[in-house]
Amino acid sequence: MAKREIKAALLGLGTVGSGVYKLVHMQEPEMESKLGSTLQIKKVLVRNLEKAASKVEDPSVLTNSWQEILDDPEIELVIEVMGGIEPAGTYIRQALSSGRHVVTANKDLIAEQGLELTRLAQENEVDLLFEAAVAGGIPIIDPLKNSLSANHITEIMGIVNGTTNFILTKMTEEGMDFGPALEMAQQLGYAEADPTADVEGLDAGRKVAIMATLAFHTPVTFRDVYTEGISSISSKDIASASEIGRKIKLIGVAKETSGGVEVRVHPMMIPAEHPLANVSGSFNAVFVHGDAVDDVMFYGRGAGEMPTASAIMGDVFAAAKTLTRGMKGSTMDPCYRNLPIKKPEDMVSRYYLRMSVDDKPGVLATLASVLGNNGVSIQQLVQKVRKEDSAEIMLVTDLVKEYHLKDALLTFRAMSIVRSEPVVIRVL
Amino acid sequence: MAKREIKAALLGLGTVGSGVYKLVHMQEPEMESKLGSTLQIKKVLVRNLEKAASKVEDPSVLTNSWQEILDDPEIELVIEVMGGIEPAGTYIRQALSSGRHVVTANKDLIAEQGLELTRLAQENEVDLLFEAAVAGGIPIIDPLKNSLSANHITEIMGIVNGTTNFILTKMTEEGMDFGPALEMAQQLGYAEADPTADVEGLDAGRKVAIMATLAFHTPVTFRDVYTEGISSISSKDIASASEIGRKIKLIGVAKETSGGVEVRVHPMMIPAEHPLANVSGSFNAVFVHGDAVDDVMFYGRGAGEMPTASAIMGDVFAAAKTLTRGMKGSTMDPCYRNLPIKKPEDMVSRYYLRMSVDDKPGVLATLASVLGNNGVSIQQLVQKVRKEDSAEIMLVTDLVKEYHLKDALLTFRAMSIVRSEPVVIRVL
Repeated sequence: MAKREIKAALLGLGTVGSGVYKLVHMQEPEMESKLGSTLQIKKVLVRNLEKAASKVEDPSVLTNSWQEILDDPEIELVIEVMGGIEPAGTYIRQALSSGRHVVTANKDLIAEQGLELTRLAQENEVDLLFEAAVAGGIPIIDPLKNSLSANHITEIMGIVNGTTNFILTKMTEEGMDFGPALEMAQQLGYAEADPTADVEGLDAGRKVAIMATLAFHTPVTFRDVYTEGISSISSKDIASASEIGRKIKLIGVAKETSGGVEVRVHPMMIPAEHPLANVSGSFNAVFVHGDAVDDVMFYGRGAGEMPTASAIMGDVFAAAKTLTRGMKGSTMDPCYRNLPIKKPEDMVSRYYLRMSVDDKPGVLATLASVLGNNGVSIQQLVQKVRKEDSAEIMLVTDLVKEYHLKDALLTFRAMSIVRSEPVVIRVL
Repeated sequence: MAKREIKAALLGLGTVGSGVYKLVHMQEPEMESKLGSTLQIKKVLVRNLEKAASKVEDPSVLTNSWQEILDDPEIELVIEVMGGIEPAGTYIRQALSSGRHVVTANKDLIAEQGLELTRLAQENEVDLLFEAAVAGGIPIIDPLKNSLSANHITEIMGIVNGTTNFILTKMTEEGMDFGPALEMAQQLGYAEADPTADVEGLDAGRKVAIMATLAFHTPVTFRDVYTEGISSISSKDIASASEIGRKIKLIGVAKETSGGVEVRVHPMMIPAEHPLANVSGSFNAVFVHGDAVDDVMFYGRGAGEMPTASAIMGDVFAAAKTLTRGMKGSTMDPCYRNLPIKKPEDMVSRYYLRMSVDDKPGVLATLASVLGNNGVSIQQLVQKVRKEDSAEIMLVTDLVKEYHLKDALLTFRAMSIVRSEPVVIRVL
């Protein structure tokens, strides 16, 4: 049999694209043994040909024309690592429609249009693979689709943003405040100049949407995910968490409940002995609960040039094996259910509250009665710290529906004895 | 298109077999959406038909004749959960040779004949899948074969035996001694009446052989694995480990070194902050290092009826999808390299030593010089505990080749000042 040569196009040559390009070369000696074929990056789409020239062995692979790639009948596989919704979305749609398998790391796009693009792939009997869109190098998409597929998955909880986990780890282990910890993350390249997407939980929210869609077989997009970031967390809250045997982590949650699917990202106080509590620095981890497998966790590097390239190339190898064996893509629709998405107000949690109040007799009783009138009972008064003429109260509530808590907070805000906007953190 | 009905045979109806039988029924409502076909357990092979009758809905599925299954042309898939080398091995060979896909949880068999059976499957263009043979419900075989396949994997370290991990956890957290902790494990059903395979590291060794074969693309069988159990570990050693910031775990290691493949199972003192150190009770975890992905860890339940059934059914679903799509099994040989297996004597480690010696001046100097003469230097004297007329010495060496240490131990054993057989534990 003649040697099969698979030709691929790489869209983008930034950090992740360079990693993919390197990994293709690193794997070259073993590729035929692994795939039964060779794999060649025939074209690399870049914006600036000159700037990219130094990054590749042979600059003739570079092009700034997507059309040239689309028109090349030899290209059977497209690897998209440009990021952003457009033009990546158009390119992927055109690639799929013209019968190319597509591997992408694009979480923004998949969190918004993943289901639509998957269905387009299926119509064209090709695969759309996106392991790298969630948790970098950690295998999680493939296990959800395959190894764990005989489970009814009821919950996913994950630390899926390395930037915020690095910041919270610095705040926890070194007592740093949010600002300096963010600056350090920026200096080390863990946080971008505009850190909003990471710090406000948007990046994690996209990953939650993607995992929820696969786990619950229900369409979930980023717009469905409730997100809350870590910028209001102070070292006081971290100390309070420690008082009650907990650590604060930015947690993405996807949960199937009788009232529908809960998808949310927010800081959370989790027990210090919980497997996620020991996930430090820029590491990521995803915890999955299924009815048969019980608890299972996946841990590793959630970002970075080579870990992300590892995930992309795992998908590329899968697509290459499909091509080598003369097979077509999968035609099973991932979303055969259509569960409702639960509103944030209806979600139930325990809450930690911190607020600055007048330091005078009866204040705690007043606060407690406001909470009680709204159906919120106090489980634990964590700390009361006196300052000049005010006191800082930190307490933990029993399980309560979020809208009840919101009502209590509205009342607090209108009260003169309450001197600061209450800080609210969920407690697992 | 007519509805595709896949018919499978289940060999064995013990704990795991019952789990598989249950899970097939639990998944029935979603099967067609997931697989594009239905899946039916048409025959169940048992030894005692009467005893098994109460475990199935319709006892007519039961048979005690393998030949009946082999002769049934409708059966396309065989799920082997009998365990043991024979007759399971013969049944699997006959199933593969007659063109059936096979899913098995049989670590004894795969650790001995996995490569030969895989090659037999490939000749017959069917798949032999064995996710459940390693670490119960945790996806590890599939990630090694797929998601992580673009890595050069250089090391796997795992806690892959729940029984020993439960015992060591009880010893660490509750200060229990080995004997009572083993008894407790037996009472709770975590350890068998004859605990040898678990306690002496044989079970873990089989899993290491299977993972090493896939990770290094080199034939490794159980006979190649150096194994050492936990029965000589005392609560004193656990306390010493704690003194130097470590915990004792039974660790399976598969490592590619310049001198060949190291495969071994033994107790090890690992840093308390290492991700494996926090894997407690009957949980398992496998840590993988690849050149691109860096560190990644998989954590979950390494045994039990439903977690193991989850892994088996993940494989069954994969085989069912292959059948539904009219595809054949993979034909890529997993072993395209043939690295030598390193001898235990040539492996390098740091060691913790504990021995009872005469309590008189100069003894420590004598011990140190014996070590020094054999090229072993002491990195740290952990403790010296005085008793009546003897002293117990606990120390940690620098990195040393095992045969140098063995030579020193030979000398110690012949010395009158050394009163006990030295306890030796590797230190990471």
